[in-house]
Amino acid sequence: MQTVTAAELVRSTELAAHIGKRIRVRGWLQNVRRLGGISFIIVRDGWGTVQAVTEEEADLRPLTENDLQPESVIILEGHLVASTQAPGGVELHAPHIDVITPVTEALPVLISKRQVKASLPNLLEHAVVVNRHPTRRAIFRLASAVMTTFRTFLSQRGFTEIQTPKLVASATESGANVFAVDYFGQQAFLAQSPQFYKQIMVGVFEGVYEVGPVFRAEPHDTARHVNEYVSLDVEFGFIEDHFTVMRLLQELMRAIFDALAASHALELELTAATLPAIPENIPHIHFADAQDLILQRHGIDVRGEPDLSPQDERWLGEWALETFGSDFLFVVGYPMVKRPFYTHPESERPAYSNSFDLLFRGTELVTGGQRLHRHQDYLDALSNAGLSAQPFATYLEAFRYGMPPHGGFAIGLERLLMQLLGMPNLRLTTLFPRDMQRLAP
Amino acid sequence: MQTVTAAELVRSTELAAHIGKRIRVRGWLQNVRRLGGISFIIVRDGWGTVQAVTEEEADLRPLTENDLQPESVIILEGHLVASTQAPGGVELHAPHIDVITPVTEALPVLISKRQVKASLPNLLEHAVVVNRHPTRRAIFRLASAVMTTFRTFLSQRGFTEIQTPKLVASATESGANVFAVDYFGQQAFLAQSPQFYKQIMVGVFEGVYEVGPVFRAEPHDTARHVNEYVSLDVEFGFIEDHFTVMRLLQELMRAIFDALAASHALELELTAATLPAIPENIPHIHFADAQDLILQRHGIDVRGEPDLSPQDERWLGEWALETFGSDFLFVVGYPMVKRPFYTHPESERPAYSNSFDLLFRGTELVTGGQRLHRHQDYLDALSNAGLSAQPFATYLEAFRYGMPPHGGFAIGLERLLMQLLGMPNLRLTTLFPRDMQRLAP
Repeated sequence: MQTVTAAELVRSTELAAHIGKRIRVRGWLQNVRRLGGISFIIVRDGWGTVQAVTEEEADLRPLTENDLQPESVIILEGHLVASTQAPGGVELHAPHIDVITPVTEALPVLISKRQVKASLPNLLEHAVVVNRHPTRRAIFRLASAVMTTFRTFLSQRGFTEIQTPKLVASATESGANVFAVDYFGQQAFLAQSPQFYKQIMVGVFEGVYEVGPVFRAEPHDTARHVNEYVSLDVEFGFIEDHFTVMRLLQELMRAIFDALAASHALELELTAATLPAIPENIPHIHFADAQDLILQRHGIDVRGEPDLSPQDERWLGEWALETFGSDFLFVVGYPMVKRPFYTHPESERPAYSNSFDLLFRGTELVTGGQRLHRHQDYLDALSNAGLSAQPFATYLEAFRYGMPPHGGFAIGLERLLMQLLGMPNLRLTTLFPRDMQRLAP
Repeated sequence: MQTVTAAELVRSTELAAHIGKRIRVRGWLQNVRRLGGISFIIVRDGWGTVQAVTEEEADLRPLTENDLQPESVIILEGHLVASTQAPGGVELHAPHIDVITPVTEALPVLISKRQVKASLPNLLEHAVVVNRHPTRRAIFRLASAVMTTFRTFLSQRGFTEIQTPKLVASATESGANVFAVDYFGQQAFLAQSPQFYKQIMVGVFEGVYEVGPVFRAEPHDTARHVNEYVSLDVEFGFIEDHFTVMRLLQELMRAIFDALAASHALELELTAATLPAIPENIPHIHFADAQDLILQRHGIDVRGEPDLSPQDERWLGEWALETFGSDFLFVVGYPMVKRPFYTHPESERPAYSNSFDLLFRGTELVTGGQRLHRHQDYLDALSNAGLSAQPFATYLEAFRYGMPPHGGFAIGLERLLMQLLGMPNLRLTTLFPRDMQRLAP
């Protein structure tokens, strides 16, 4: 049958428009299931899956004669018919299989079933193949959509994308928790954040954003830390105070979840995600009031603590959901003592700051706030922190030569996905996580 | 005059719609020029500049009374009128100045004139302020537009964005030219490219792209090297050979320059850029034929050399422009001996490869090609290269478990801008360049 090779090549997600035709799908053999005398061949391409059905053993011969394993790369041709029973509502009949790349070894982790059944270490060890599984890759396609929406939202508002150096001469956040690099005999560090550079670039473009890796040498082996992650950074000028920043962030959050709902239904279904409730205005509570509230509601006196514990954050998240029907809560005014030196203090109570965290389902998702913008304020702040101005000389040049009131925030991409998908471990939302034990794959 | 503060705030690039109204622009004081009894106040906001004109010395008092310097942050209010003589065709009359952040020190590099007049080291040392200059920042806004178009083009074709680790366990390209990192007592390296990960991810998404930093510890202090740069990476499956990859790249290049022409006229004008000529089909020449051509045209016999020199590339660029009217030329079939182990050989002449470079105005801009995709081919290639398979174990898992024929390419963002803008030094197209001497700003 010479016309076989002329059948149109169609993506698994675009089949509906081709019912009644003979078409080809190319991809990976996800599975062959046999039920009575019927065989189901499931193929996964880059976007979804499709099944072929046959009662002819001969149709399977290209697979069976060499005992081919799942993940063999094949072209599957067949007659496309609507089928209410088939996943996706269509299936291929009278299939013909061409093998492109045979796989003859059994997989180290089974990825042909509806769910991946593997321990976390095993899953991470074999991420190269496990990430092919439809429910696994759905996570990373959602990650891609979050990045795209983040950029589009900001670009439409006149923000400019920047790419700033990851090899830096001095630590941005604190002396600890930073990876050292041998830089032609000098010592360099890996950037813990683009904080200094995004502030500097407010002097150039007024509003900037960056999506890129950040590196934290935190020696914590917890479920919610990795040592390299993707940070979605924003910084912009001419703000009134941190509430201007929070308003932008609120709009951005709504845009992100609206975009996922509009264009990633398949991925949300595969990952069993529940999109969050975002009220018209995300509620906010002052740090001091939050501590009072915890005392009232839970009888635990955390007043005087300079930060919120994970337990405190969970309690506040519950309160926001009960009281406001909101999965999000802004906590504002964190004590200056726990915030970096560039943080702008509250005008009335300078022990508190014009900063915020955005809690999402009871976990910190975003940190942001207003920064200092006057040169003298920086000199005073460094001096108060017992830091020398010298290592910050080029950063300080931005403030010496005119900066407007400004602020910004940073969203952890993996943290956002972890909270959205209810994942028990941040590593599960990272393509190839880096932790204290893991540098590969 | 109480209504002053109610004047609408307008961006410098959106003034045309507000002629006849009293408006406000906020930004940085670029310059004050005096001509006879007339003063011109030029303000730069995040997008462009606007000038105000006055004959009243009193209007300048907020600047003069404290001897304020350029880069002071101000709000400039005035009556917007059309003026054929003014840059941009509009100017503000009867100006009123409010100072937000005063600058009292003279700038280390003058950025108030039409061109930046500074030596390269001085310019780089003070990049924090020099990048604010309209012609400097135009470069980085073009960079942003290139990244955006790159992503949009690929996303529309079903490619998925990935973010892969920059901290890796082994060097990807070769043992040399790699930065070492102390990773919790272990040795890690900074990724020289996302090559291994983007190939692995073809197994997940079929087509992927990444925009991110890459790190090269090359001890070269030349005008066209920096040690950290932004790489635009693409990789996709189910190709026929490297010509499939070249066709995608050609379309992408056209999309990028079309987008710049359509939406970045101001930046192209400021940087005096000449958009390239891209013929319907970018010409290509085989490596061996290119060497023959150089002998014919220039009498220099480079046959037998395993690579092209910068001089060879310039000659070939001239030839492409003369012969085809093309600023671009593909050179295909580079000898295998100079290409990395994962390169796919030519089927007929296995000493040559299914790889290409894209020359842009006589300089290599893009490197790409078809990769090996069979597991056994990798084992053979590593063995032939005298490399142990063990450090590549997780990478090889992708091929052990089924990969289609695939290929891709990497574009150096700064290199693209350097060639487009005719810049003499790659550092001039990098926000904050990293070279052997420079880790700050």
